[in-house]
Amino acid sequence: MDHAGRLSRLRSGLEENHLDSLLVTHLPNVHYLCGFTGSAAALLVADRGSILFTDGRYRTQAKEEVKVKVARIVIARKPPPMAAAEWLAAHGRSLTPVSVGIEPESIAAGLRDRLASVLKGKARLRFAPPLIERARMVKDAAEILRIRRAVELGASLFQVARQKIRPGVSEVEVAAAMEYQARCAGAEGMSFPTILASGTRSAIVHGRASDARIPRRGFVVCDFGVILAHYCSDRTRTVHVGRPSPEARQLYEAVREAQQAGIAAVRPGATAAEVDGAARRVLRQRKLARYFTHSTGHGLGLEIHEAPRLAAGQTQTLEPGMVITIEPGAYVPGKWGVRIEDVVVVTSSGCAVLTPSDKELVII
Amino acid sequence: MDHAGRLSRLRSGLEENHLDSLLVTHLPNVHYLCGFTGSAAALLVADRGSILFTDGRYRTQAKEEVKVKVARIVIARKPPPMAAAEWLAAHGRSLTPVSVGIEPESIAAGLRDRLASVLKGKARLRFAPPLIERARMVKDAAEILRIRRAVELGASLFQVARQKIRPGVSEVEVAAAMEYQARCAGAEGMSFPTILASGTRSAIVHGRASDARIPRRGFVVCDFGVILAHYCSDRTRTVHVGRPSPEARQLYEAVREAQQAGIAAVRPGATAAEVDGAARRVLRQRKLARYFTHSTGHGLGLEIHEAPRLAAGQTQTLEPGMVITIEPGAYVPGKWGVRIEDVVVVTSSGCAVLTPSDKELVII
Repeated sequence: MDHAGRLSRLRSGLEENHLDSLLVTHLPNVHYLCGFTGSAAALLVADRGSILFTDGRYRTQAKEEVKVKVARIVIARKPPPMAAAEWLAAHGRSLTPVSVGIEPESIAAGLRDRLASVLKGKARLRFAPPLIERARMVKDAAEILRIRRAVELGASLFQVARQKIRPGVSEVEVAAAMEYQARCAGAEGMSFPTILASGTRSAIVHGRASDARIPRRGFVVCDFGVILAHYCSDRTRTVHVGRPSPEARQLYEAVREAQQAGIAAVRPGATAAEVDGAARRVLRQRKLARYFTHSTGHGLGLEIHEAPRLAAGQTQTLEPGMVITIEPGAYVPGKWGVRIEDVVVVTSSGCAVLTPSDKELVII
Repeated sequence: MDHAGRLSRLRSGLEENHLDSLLVTHLPNVHYLCGFTGSAAALLVADRGSILFTDGRYRTQAKEEVKVKVARIVIARKPPPMAAAEWLAAHGRSLTPVSVGIEPESIAAGLRDRLASVLKGKARLRFAPPLIERARMVKDAAEILRIRRAVELGASLFQVARQKIRPGVSEVEVAAAMEYQARCAGAEGMSFPTILASGTRSAIVHGRASDARIPRRGFVVCDFGVILAHYCSDRTRTVHVGRPSPEARQLYEAVREAQQAGIAAVRPGATAAEVDGAARRVLRQRKLARYFTHSTGHGLGLEIHEAPRLAAGQTQTLEPGMVITIEPGAYVPGKWGVRIEDVVVVTSSGCAVLTPSDKELVII
């Protein structure tokens, strides 16, 4: 990964925003900028270079993961952000206090105040704009390759689900088999708790796999993702156990059309809200709009939920290299639900679905 | 779980701290206080009652999980903490601004400022002391039962590891088999990424299971935990593949004695630092102190890492009902490492190891 390039572009962004340095504390951002994957870290990005603060547990790992020309490593006894603040206090220019950016959405309010008191008179803390999040929205070729592989592995898990889903089998048995397959194929883990929601539970948007047994007839929503080489996948397929009623088929087809409309709306220059609107419109025409209770999709990469968010009011325009999910659904409380989801990458003319597959209703 | 009692005790704590209400945004704290397990929530605890703010995805789940007498549920379109602030702004007493506590270590600095601007003139935000974290340190009988079951399931995974660990098998294959077993036995997931560190990798304290193949000779550190009915387990066993050298045996025995000394030091009234000191002393006597690079243990419960922290300088005294890990280790960089860990519950006279087992060096 091009850590040096990312840091250099970030430094330009800091300059434009009149920040002398940025204290990066959101761990996926630390990872993105310098490659470090440990659980305790703060990265100080300054014009003269970058310093990664971590603790003794990560001495070896930090050396392995972070190239010398990318960042200097400091092993600290204190929590890494405090160590960074003390370093700044010791090295700050005393006459003209430096302006240090912090990440408003990830730094805890208590920590901010402790840092401010360490830095008093030495540096001024300022909320930085989401420069790293904006950069991370557009994936480079190496990232798209990683996501492509993660989605490919993720897609293969649906075959496990199809084989395992049978009336009387518990949801969690199906999820366990999928997760085992993911792990054996090299995944570090799942990108979120596997959703396997059968029968009336399919109406629960976030129906994590439970002890519930799959009924003889009804939908089963399978929403699952892996983390492979640090990148996330995300995919939803809904199958039907037993013969679907005409009404069930109608619901499924409506969601399938909405998803297709969402995918068709993805192109450079379209806003996130337009893509959401395109999917929502199909469900509105079918009088199902009130059952579509979440947004149409989200970016993904190092994290399962990243910018942009595909929802009403979101003015972010899409750009080539963005990777987003398209996942409309319809959920009738107490009755049933359907969701269909793919990951797509925005191309110069539209988008490409990663690991496309037939989305005819699968009947088990 | 006794949510009503927890909320009532918290209200007394708020009164003592001159807070009219507390806006709880740390999700495990929300769960602890009212039973809600969704991923978007804010719980407003006031003297007149409590209100859970969540979003449309969790309408059904919130009703199922939160008893009417525990908290009222508000389904919000905005992020739950903002919805709570707007509710407060609309219902605050305008002449005497109410004093609203927030959680300094979990609320983001940016969010705090947005809440403050919504509440301007209506309520004053103040950092609350860690009242909930303090309450959570001491587990009640129902919680100890849950943790006991989680630890029991966790302990059974070591049998899977023993069977799977063989020279040439990859670390991740062993971890996958353990995790599959956990899931089939009802675990919601693992409480942290499974550590399986073999050969020289055993010197890496946080050596997540990797593609590395288990060598013909050397230590394998297995550190693993499950989440069962929302409570965490945590356990470490270190085995040796092939015949251990006398030096390897010495290292193992030193860590085993240190762990025994740590367990023996756990009793009501002892400080967290004393327990850490007891384990560390044994390793110091063996000239291994500099290889013990982390703290001796931590509380666990709804989260894998909770208060108290068992480390030098920690003055927290132990009380009956606290549940903590005792996990000293020694790691010689580039060579090898050993860690042994149990979960213990503090009793009226000392402590009880959960799912105790023989800790003779297992040779595979």
